[in-house]
Amino acid sequence: MSETAAPRRARGGGGAARRAERTAVSIETARFIERNIPLYEPLSEEALEVIEANAETILQEVGVNFVNNPAALDRWREAGADIDGERVRIPKGLARKLCATAPSRITQHARNPARTVEIGGNSLVCAPVYGPPFVRDMDGGRRYATMDDFRKFVKLGYMSKWLHHSGGTVCEPTDVAVNKRHLDMLHAHMTLSDKPFMGSVTEPSRAQDSVDMCEILFGKDFVQENTVMTSLINVNSPMTFDDVMMGAMEVYAQNNQACILSPFIVGGAMAPVSVVGTLTQVLAEVLAGIAYSQLVKPGAPVIFGAFVTSIDMNSGAPTFGTPEASHILYGAGQLARRLNLPYRSGGGLCGSKLPDAQAAYETAHTHNAVLLGGVNFMLHSCGWLEGGLVSSFEKFVMDADQLGVLHHMARGVMHDENGQAMDAIREVGPGGHYLGCAHTQANFKDAFWRTEVLDYKPFETWEEDGARDTMTLANARMRRMLDTYQQPPLDEGIAEGLADYTARKKESMPDAFM
Amino acid sequence: MSETAAPRRARGGGGAARRAERTAVSIETARFIERNIPLYEPLSEEALEVIEANAETILQEVGVNFVNNPAALDRWREAGADIDGERVRIPKGLARKLCATAPSRITQHARNPARTVEIGGNSLVCAPVYGPPFVRDMDGGRRYATMDDFRKFVKLGYMSKWLHHSGGTVCEPTDVAVNKRHLDMLHAHMTLSDKPFMGSVTEPSRAQDSVDMCEILFGKDFVQENTVMTSLINVNSPMTFDDVMMGAMEVYAQNNQACILSPFIVGGAMAPVSVVGTLTQVLAEVLAGIAYSQLVKPGAPVIFGAFVTSIDMNSGAPTFGTPEASHILYGAGQLARRLNLPYRSGGGLCGSKLPDAQAAYETAHTHNAVLLGGVNFMLHSCGWLEGGLVSSFEKFVMDADQLGVLHHMARGVMHDENGQAMDAIREVGPGGHYLGCAHTQANFKDAFWRTEVLDYKPFETWEEDGARDTMTLANARMRRMLDTYQQPPLDEGIAEGLADYTARKKESMPDAFM
Repeated sequence: MSETAAPRRARGGGGAARRAERTAVSIETARFIERNIPLYEPLSEEALEVIEANAETILQEVGVNFVNNPAALDRWREAGADIDGERVRIPKGLARKLCATAPSRITQHARNPARTVEIGGNSLVCAPVYGPPFVRDMDGGRRYATMDDFRKFVKLGYMSKWLHHSGGTVCEPTDVAVNKRHLDMLHAHMTLSDKPFMGSVTEPSRAQDSVDMCEILFGKDFVQENTVMTSLINVNSPMTFDDVMMGAMEVYAQNNQACILSPFIVGGAMAPVSVVGTLTQVLAEVLAGIAYSQLVKPGAPVIFGAFVTSIDMNSGAPTFGTPEASHILYGAGQLARRLNLPYRSGGGLCGSKLPDAQAAYETAHTHNAVLLGGVNFMLHSCGWLEGGLVSSFEKFVMDADQLGVLHHMARGVMHDENGQAMDAIREVGPGGHYLGCAHTQANFKDAFWRTEVLDYKPFETWEEDGARDTMTLANARMRRMLDTYQQPPLDEGIAEGLADYTARKKESMPDAFM
Repeated sequence: MSETAAPRRARGGGGAARRAERTAVSIETARFIERNIPLYEPLSEEALEVIEANAETILQEVGVNFVNNPAALDRWREAGADIDGERVRIPKGLARKLCATAPSRITQHARNPARTVEIGGNSLVCAPVYGPPFVRDMDGGRRYATMDDFRKFVKLGYMSKWLHHSGGTVCEPTDVAVNKRHLDMLHAHMTLSDKPFMGSVTEPSRAQDSVDMCEILFGKDFVQENTVMTSLINVNSPMTFDDVMMGAMEVYAQNNQACILSPFIVGGAMAPVSVVGTLTQVLAEVLAGIAYSQLVKPGAPVIFGAFVTSIDMNSGAPTFGTPEASHILYGAGQLARRLNLPYRSGGGLCGSKLPDAQAAYETAHTHNAVLLGGVNFMLHSCGWLEGGLVSSFEKFVMDADQLGVLHHMARGVMHDENGQAMDAIREVGPGGHYLGCAHTQANFKDAFWRTEVLDYKPFETWEEDGARDTMTLANARMRRMLDTYQQPPLDEGIAEGLADYTARKKESMPDAFM
């Protein structure tokens, strides 16, 4: 299931490098999850067919808007859609037909080949939180995120055994100009980690920067022939595709890079309050978006995304980890598989202000649905707090530990001779105990998942150790991880190329904060 | 899904009663869960057949011990088992054949008929924590449980909307003699709540007291013809049936009262470290125990129980909410259904010392597995802390709120015209919002599960309100509930009869603390 890749000897030579090597921290990363368990598919064939038929009706009768994007309207017109201003009405069956050229499985390459992931089929790739403008930890409280925070999250992600992906905007570095921060973020993912990552989507030109920097990191030919980024393209639900997001997607599609086409829905506000109604809208939006990606470049890698929360109808606040959100997560997975497309959802979602019990209940509900619902790419696996406003250092560490639960669940159950353990049952017999028996000795090391964060101590020991709650334990672990972080090795020429590109681009334009 | 039963006018007359009536708190209790969703069944047919064949082999070759129970050995001998000392070896097929007379579904009556529950089929009945010698709350910390604590938990259970059952030993009242506390506990369940409850199992004579008190509460004939208690009979795993537990079960079976026959296993210590090995032992134990109940009285109501945790192999501590425990929970459910028996597991389990994130992660994992795994009777649904050593007031309230998530998940997804919401999607169109549309207005009240504990406020409001974590919010709710508690009405003659029985029994014997 997992393999260990100790960092190679650091460059730069001399005594310091040798000392670093002697004290090198072994970074173990589990391979992405390949489920050896069945999926949970609660929606009936009949319900799915109703949703599919209704989505086609919506596309044909109501249509979708492509805003400020005449080229998109031209592409749609040519494909046979009915264009009325910015409204695109898509005849029944057309969007689904266009989606058929999208691949069912994506290999996203990491610069360390051992970290390359497969997105599709029975896989589950876990990526961290994306997007919060704030960070929070026990030491500094809640505050605007900075580039320093960003780098810390990338380091923690690199060191997290059960996390497969470095993610994208793990927090918004608000101390760097809006038009330049993508450069620093990409540079951090490329140099502080060797796991796969996401590109910028906030401007088509920034998507192009992402491609250009990948060409420095991977080589130009490699990038054109392989997927090295998976980037997040949100739909402005209901049924609106803006020019910024579509522009970024166009750049990525043309460069063979993967996009997640993802409705972003607070149910009851941006979609109907019913599960089937919301799924209908999700499907219509994804069909339109993915069909468009295939109009830009047939065969471009894309992922069926769905980020759906519910709403607290008393306050209007979005809510997370709710039963209705789980139903939608399961249903969208069934719809994605019927389209033969990889499937992305959120994970680790919660509305809590603190990494407390609420955060954990809500996160665990989502994690469980993600695993059993067949998600292939889980964004926000760890670190998400306060409805996505905050990246929490402690919750990052807590959730990343919980991803090990999903790995062990996904292993399934072995019923070979060793799994049957008949010799052990015979050996121990009524009234005995299994701690010392041969089968236990042979299997105990790998038999049970073991936390690196949670507390299993007896009460008295726990109390003597300071009676720490989970947040406090996670804070201590987070500090230990950052204290022992070692940068993965990178070719010196590539490192210089990336630094040069970043510096040159940043110098080429004035700061903009919009 | 639920119905409201306001308390009838309190007895005792006069101004106080009328004032009480005017301020009466409406106690709403949801009907037990009836799943409108499919189950999750990860074990293959082949794996299940292997487990079933191996369990029969174990029963025949290794056998089980019935300790200090010559009558049990006689019953087994007569049924065709091979008796060697206290060891009972059961020929292949015999135990399964004997189990066939056990009913597949149990109606457990409550004194308020609206609270009567069905245990079996697609039902899920939620009962609170059972057994801890300690209690904990934010006000008094961790301390030995008293009868006063016990009564508070019964009151909280009565007032918890999503909890269907009053449970049994919600905590061990250590301030009452061991040989008398069952009387006070039963009296509390019978008078402070009108939900169904569990009987005493710590001595056959105490099981008989439980039956006698039920005859006062329900009437003698009613008790003999109907199930009014569901009591917990643990197996001393591996494969040992002691005379105390079996003696209690004999009393209940002879009086037509339900027992849960439940292996209590810390995997790796009391069963093999493998999932399939543990399931084999669980099945062998349950087959032997339930077969024995049917030897005592064919047709006696029994439940297939499985309480299985894993072990931390570094410290020897039991661990909860782990992936291996979930696999066993799912697998045992599949085995129970193949025997056509109701299924009980634990829920709400955790090893944490505090109702913090660890407690919630572990609890949510177990709650999810319980719902999807087809459990019919969930013990420890709420309030369990510290591996079952502590009943937590705050966690009781937090978990009881979470049971609403399971209710809403179990509803499934409606795809009728209202569920499809096509008019809403047409009405709103691209770029609009659904908050004010007709479909939302018609459905929002019941569309989404809503917490009574967790926080959905904006950050600023939450901070002004004291920046409370979940534990603190639950503490406040617990106090409000206890402050507004009103005893459900009870016929005065019955109340006197129960008080007399309890007093007379307690006076009839000296205190014993063993």
